[in-house]
Amino acid sequence: MKSAPLSDLADMVGGVIERCASDNANPCITGINTLSAAGPSELSFLANKRYRNALKITGAAAVLLSANETAPERCHVIRVADPYLAFAVLQRFFHPQPKACGKHHPSAVIDQTAVLADDVDVAAHVVIGADTQIGAGTIIKSGCIIGAGVSIGSGCLLHANSVVNDRCILGDGVILQPGAVIGSDGFGYAWSGCEHLKIPQVGRVILEDGVEIGANSCIDRGAIDDTVIERGVKLDNQIQIAHNVRIGAFSVMASQVGISGSTMVGKGCQFGGQAGLAGHIHVGDGVKLAAKSGVMSDLAAGGTYAGAPAMPHRLWLKVSALMLKLPELWKTRSRQ
Amino acid sequence: MKSAPLSDLADMVGGVIERCASDNANPCITGINTLSAAGPSELSFLANKRYRNALKITGAAAVLLSANETAPERCHVIRVADPYLAFAVLQRFFHPQPKACGKHHPSAVIDQTAVLADDVDVAAHVVIGADTQIGAGTIIKSGCIIGAGVSIGSGCLLHANSVVNDRCILGDGVILQPGAVIGSDGFGYAWSGCEHLKIPQVGRVILEDGVEIGANSCIDRGAIDDTVIERGVKLDNQIQIAHNVRIGAFSVMASQVGISGSTMVGKGCQFGGQAGLAGHIHVGDGVKLAAKSGVMSDLAAGGTYAGAPAMPHRLWLKVSALMLKLPELWKTRSRQ
Amino acid sequence: MKSAPLSDLADMVGGVIERCASDNANPCITGINTLSAAGPSELSFLANKRYRNALKITGAAAVLLSANETAPERCHVIRVADPYLAFAVLQRFFHPQPKACGKHHPSAVIDQTAVLADDVDVAAHVVIGADTQIGAGTIIKSGCIIGAGVSIGSGCLLHANSVVNDRCILGDGVILQPGAVIGSDGFGYAWSGCEHLKIPQVGRVILEDGVEIGANSCIDRGAIDDTVIERGVKLDNQIQIAHNVRIGAFSVMASQVGISGSTMVGKGCQFGGQAGLAGHIHVGDGVKLAAKSGVMSDLAAGGTYAGAPAMPHRLWLKVSALMLKLPELWKTRSRQ
Repeated sequence: MKSAPLSDLADMVGGVIERCASDNANPCITGINTLSAAGPSELSFLANKRYRNALKITGAAAVLLSANETAPERCHVIRVADPYLAFAVLQRFFHPQPKACGKHHPSAVIDQTAVLADDVDVAAHVVIGADTQIGAGTIIKSGCIIGAGVSIGSGCLLHANSVVNDRCILGDGVILQPGAVIGSDGFGYAWSGCEHLKIPQVGRVILEDGVEIGANSCIDRGAIDDTVIERGVKLDNQIQIAHNVRIGAFSVMASQVGISGSTMVGKGCQFGGQAGLAGHIHVGDGVKLAAKSGVMSDLAAGGTYAGAPAMPHRLWLKVSALMLKLPELWKTRSRQ
Repeated sequence: MKSAPLSDLADMVGGVIERCASDNANPCITGINTLSAAGPSELSFLANKRYRNALKITGAAAVLLSANETAPERCHVIRVADPYLAFAVLQRFFHPQPKACGKHHPSAVIDQTAVLADDVDVAAHVVIGADTQIGAGTIIKSGCIIGAGVSIGSGCLLHANSVVNDRCILGDGVILQPGAVIGSDGFGYAWSGCEHLKIPQVGRVILEDGVEIGANSCIDRGAIDDTVIERGVKLDNQIQIAHNVRIGAFSVMASQVGISGSTMVGKGCQFGGQAGLAGHIHVGDGVKLAAKSGVMSDLAAGGTYAGAPAMPHRLWLKVSALMLKLPELWKTRSRQ
Repeated sequence: MKSAPLSDLADMVGGVIERCASDNANPCITGINTLSAAGPSELSFLANKRYRNALKITGAAAVLLSANETAPERCHVIRVADPYLAFAVLQRFFHPQPKACGKHHPSAVIDQTAVLADDVDVAAHVVIGADTQIGAGTIIKSGCIIGAGVSIGSGCLLHANSVVNDRCILGDGVILQPGAVIGSDGFGYAWSGCEHLKIPQVGRVILEDGVEIGANSCIDRGAIDDTVIERGVKLDNQIQIAHNVRIGAFSVMASQVGISGSTMVGKGCQFGGQAGLAGHIHVGDGVKLAAKSGVMSDLAAGGTYAGAPAMPHRLWLKVSALMLKLPELWKTRSRQ
């Protein structure tokens, strides 16, 4: 368990300490906790106004606060520009990602042509196929199945029972949550007159550096070209990305989103849960989609949309409010 | 295969036998079948009025009926207050849950510090981590990956390829369907100015006694606090529960429901399939949600809601009917 | 890597070659690529008008075109009735399905009572239960868990970490994508007055010949009767099929569709992504559902539907357009 004096933590996040009247001006901090649960050796933070009441009565040794928040009486304060970001930085100090140390469990089946950096960890019942390469410091947890000709970068973390099919490419620092499937076949068939003839899906999936894929999410391989998830994209659980989709850098999607084939999503987008996108459309950079949006056509960059079919969010607010007035509209309709 | 005389079955469910003119007043019953498929040594039941026609022509030896249903001529009747419940009780007699007997398959990898009760079954290619405890009579099926510091109660059944990550807690009688993921990381990041900085998710998942989690459903671990699924909750397949959610006892959710972070769901709720709930909201006890509901704010206890955004079900019935009248409303609108 | 002269490829798809002024009248073709990426030894195709611009500048040796498309100047043309189907046929020539050759990885755990045809491939860490039968040429990839009493036909392909539970039946040529779950328990409980009593789910899942199930999709076993997916049905990723559903032959469903218990879907249906169907309803043959449709009652054969609740697609087009006019309708309403 890590710990550090309060002053060190303030330095890590470029914060300024405002001390309360406590006996211990620089307590040793052993971890971070919520405002309501934090104890006298713990740090806490206020990042969401709805927890302001908890701030007043917190038992934490210190709290991370933005400039405009009133300090509680009984604990120290670290003033920072962004308490949530400071919390993230310090939580990463207290809980660093596990380090690989080159353990290969004897039950792992590693093809003799696979090339693993010296310190890659391979846990029990993992399978690694022919000609696959894995970079330094990557951790492969139990039950993962990695195909042939796969390339995985350094510092990746593949959680239990995730699957990476043949020839897919993962950059550095990629994380797969349990049960994620990378490189399943795209859904492509041609009707022969008597059956749906399966079209071999021969493209790859490319996950660029820093991508994280949620539990039981699926990224289909391309039909001919590749499916590409650009750097820093974060996808939550149970998301479905169809063949030949491209998702722009640093876009973020909540769980159960589904994106149909060949759709292009811009950079820095934010999609709410259960949103669905049709195939072959183009969504501009920085687009925000509300949960459950249904997108059937191109969306211009920078907009915020909601509803199915998706419309500008402001219009959707009006429309969804007026839907509740339909009984009144109907009663007072003019009868001609 | 189990079997029992009709009179014994009636006793098990507190039912009263009304005999038809059959030669065999107390036939030996070998199982339960549907009204249309049941044969002369089988029991059947009527729990849904839409199958009343099948009742008249059933070939079953006997049927479970409520008081107000007319008995068919050619079979015995067991009168019960709740035929569906009686069916459940008797089906559990004919098909008891398999019993563990302490088999450990040699391919299972069980950490030497794990503590398993004597009669726990561990099937092929299972992995059990350090300091994990598993209670009496629990069955771990093939391919399950159980992390370190996990606690699993007695009488649990973990189906194939399910995953329980480090430090999660399962009570007694918990069932995981295949591919369920317990303790994936919650979806938490802070924007650093140039990337989404992953926030370590250090809370746990707690599944209380009698919880069942469906196939490929995911329960994220808490960010700091725990994600809690209270006793007797039943979740269907492909459900997503985000970090720090709490679901009240005996709530039931159909497949593909998604619940966002920190939302609190009351006891005894019933959610239809594909419903979605925003984060940080509170849903009262006994709330019913129609399929595909989209909940964006608190819902009072005991209500029934539908639509996206969710509204009272009665209002939704009117609104959704009037949506079909929009062309008429538009044609007859007043032009001012 | 396969290759063939252009004339052979034309013969395979019954096409007629129209030659351009190239030096090489019958080039050796080494593969198929997109119009924009294809090189001088590759074939391409135009199946979607939106790529017509790419046709003019393609570097392909030849293209598959329908009768009405103008040939580009610099490449040969194979005229065919259906370029997409011809592409499928030729892609299957260049990328034939892998052939099984009877390899059993030593880490696979195959019950001694299981009966496998001579040439079945069983990869690492697979588990195959008692009394299970597997037909000729079937390939079982790493980490698959197959229960007891299962029957799998010939020429099947089970991708990594898929699960087939006890007594389920797969016909010939069935494909399971990674993480698919066949035969999870249906979601059936009876309220006992103090808990949801689990009803043992004792039916099977039957996947008929040529069925393909997407990654992380789940097909629940029947409560008493079977869940049946008829021949040639193709289901995309993350689809949920509840107990006792029947899906008619050659129906196709996009990802994240959910179908509730005992619903009957006709033959040749096409469902868009995230569509949801209530339980105990009947959908006729050839029904098309738009993405995100919510079906609450029977649908007549041959219709096209959209919306939630689902309505005829034509009506939905009007209704969804008029929803955007609600602010105008409200402003101009008559006040009585």
